[in-house]
Amino acid sequence: MKTLKIANIPGDGIGKEVVPAATEILKTLSDIHGGLRFEFTSFPWSCEYYLEHGKMMPEDGLERLKDFDSIFLGAVGNLKLVPDHVSLWGLLIKIRREFEQVINIRPAKVIDGVRSPLLNPKDFDLIVVRENSEGEYSSVGGKIFQGEDEIAIQNAIFSRKGTERAMRYAFELAKKRRKHVTSATKSNGIFHSMPFWDHVFEEVSKDYPEINTDSQHIDALSAFFVTRPERFDVIVASNLFGDILTDLGAAIMGSVGIAPAANINVNGKFPSMFEPVHGSAPDIVGKGIANPIGQIWTAKMMLDHYGEEELGGILLNVIESVTRDGILTPDIGGKYTTKGVTDEINTRLKAIDKKGNNAEF
Amino acid sequence: MKTLKIANIPGDGIGKEVVPAATEILKTLSDIHGGLRFEFTSFPWSCEYYLEHGKMMPEDGLERLKDFDSIFLGAVGNLKLVPDHVSLWGLLIKIRREFEQVINIRPAKVIDGVRSPLLNPKDFDLIVVRENSEGEYSSVGGKIFQGEDEIAIQNAIFSRKGTERAMRYAFELAKKRRKHVTSATKSNGIFHSMPFWDHVFEEVSKDYPEINTDSQHIDALSAFFVTRPERFDVIVASNLFGDILTDLGAAIMGSVGIAPAANINVNGKFPSMFEPVHGSAPDIVGKGIANPIGQIWTAKMMLDHYGEEELGGILLNVIESVTRDGILTPDIGGKYTTKGVTDEINTRLKAIDKKGNNAEF
Ligand SMILES: CC(C)[C@H](C(=O)O)[C@@H](O)C(=O)O
Ligand SMILES: CC(C)[C@H](C(=O)O)[C@@H](O)C(=O)O
Repeated sequence: MKTLKIANIPGDGIGKEVVPAATEILKTLSDIHGGLRFEFTSFPWSCEYYLEHGKMMPEDGLERLKDFDSIFLGAVGNLKLVPDHVSLWGLLIKIRREFEQVINIRPAKVIDGVRSPLLNPKDFDLIVVRENSEGEYSSVGGKIFQGEDEIAIQNAIFSRKGTERAMRYAFELAKKRRKHVTSATKSNGIFHSMPFWDHVFEEVSKDYPEINTDSQHIDALSAFFVTRPERFDVIVASNLFGDILTDLGAAIMGSVGIAPAANINVNGKFPSMFEPVHGSAPDIVGKGIANPIGQIWTAKMMLDHYGEEELGGILLNVIESVTRDGILTPDIGGKYTTKGVTDEINTRLKAIDKKGNNAEF
Repeated sequence: MKTLKIANIPGDGIGKEVVPAATEILKTLSDIHGGLRFEFTSFPWSCEYYLEHGKMMPEDGLERLKDFDSIFLGAVGNLKLVPDHVSLWGLLIKIRREFEQVINIRPAKVIDGVRSPLLNPKDFDLIVVRENSEGEYSSVGGKIFQGEDEIAIQNAIFSRKGTERAMRYAFELAKKRRKHVTSATKSNGIFHSMPFWDHVFEEVSKDYPEINTDSQHIDALSAFFVTRPERFDVIVASNLFGDILTDLGAAIMGSVGIAPAANINVNGKFPSMFEPVHGSAPDIVGKGIANPIGQIWTAKMMLDHYGEEELGGILLNVIESVTRDGILTPDIGGKYTTKGVTDEINTRLKAIDKKGNNAEF
């Protein structure tokens, strides 16, 4: 029996609605599997927690998370209570950084039954490898002077190590896929960091002669996501560019509500964190209509991470069977609730179990 | 008789094909108008020029441009000859900066006969006001250490003055439009510059109580450009975010080949520069199929800039009549050449003239 200790952090807004939904699904999967158990512990860290305690998590928060196998996070942020940079840097970005979750992977592909906003979406299936620990997301910088002379300076820090690591991760991934890596750059406009990025990309690519490469400026690349997403396989991007591209990727899939993601600790020293692409969605909080698929698909990425790719595959098939049958939340044009969609996925998974199809595990 | 002295810089690639096309159209417009004359002087500054002279423009290049009324530029960049950051910072970005063209305005709207890649493009009509002189495009920074310890540092500089100026420009523009300004931010991830940006936005917006505002993180905003472009009126964005959003805007219009832009010098000390959104497009150079509409529509923005909005309006109507009739280059699904489309626009403009419709000028 393999037991995975999972720290649930529902966080803010719809995070509190979709994390319980996906947790339920994970429990069912554990029953199907037979040899895999999850032990969930829930942490209330969020903007509401901040109001009470003056911080997003306790002093020893990281200490308390560190021995879990993984973190399963919903969404962080509630502008009405806490400024975004305070809430995010105090929880989400802090965990990503302190736990050396240096890679963020986010697939985007066409899902049966979910209508893309594109007129003619060819069968795209891409994955963005986002550098997740440095780059444009940096606490280095500050302000100087007052009033009309005020200047804010923001440093972006690109290390050879971090840049190369993200790129190698992308190349290794491409080996198992369609053998193409696209580098997201902006070396025509961003003077120091992006020519450096290009240089490292060129060097790393020499170690992978079997992989095709190209480089696209982020402006053109964003446009290509809309006009020709099918031309991409693996895309490697800086922290900010990866952030933008993956929301775009989610949009062309049909909704940010279905897009999954994983923050990977690659050195095995700390837990990885699984959190969907979407945010806390204040506009639909409490209505019970948040799409649970992003969080559930994110659970699949957690399964994949532990080598349970077969179980993960079954889950994704069930998700697609549900969307194909039109069991959809409002964000993708349906009338179902979070609970409605979750229950349906759950029921179908249990049916697989009862048919005895779990023999294969 | 009003005479405008225009410095033509065709630049690289298809810039050399579309600038002459648009210049021809401007000459025709001058005939229609009767009271407006253009005097064009052409400068060969480009990557080829660099190969010969070791720089993108002569030492006294800016001096030679400074007394023109406007600069009419095609595109800069040819990676095969010169690294992008060298060519761009040596010509395009240099002119934007030295001539204090601190605002870049770029409209994106649905054009008759040009098919958007969106399934159901509602009638969007938005305009991005891009801060054009500072922010993420900064030459401050550099590299330190060697080999695996190497680090590149890139500074982004946001001044109160520059930020506020871009925002006020956006609010003033919104007054004449649908009275809504959206701020493109990323204050949840970019720690120093973006909270500063938000703060300035909040302050400036107080001076415009009649204008509605909202703030969107760039990742979500990029997604909204694909899913709900019709919800935007004026968007104010930093240099980099404006760059990304306007390529996206061009993509949802149907092609980057039709999107116009203007780099505005707001203090009247130096010429403004009119250049389309698209680049030098090395893949189609020399084929005679570059879409001239981006450059021709950019000429319309130049006319607007000199108060010739009526003439500009006629030009845009003719452009739309041509696309409506299916006279399109391959990038927007047609079979016409650059010359074919240009000739048609020219012929229709001349017909207006002959019918005596120029009386109104
Ligand atoms: C060529 C490049 C430097 C330029 C920019 O990033 O400003 C271009 O993309 C644009 O949008 O005008
Ligand atoms: C909430 C925010 C800080 C975060 C990010 O920018 O990384 C989010 O947009 C994401 O993509 O995970």
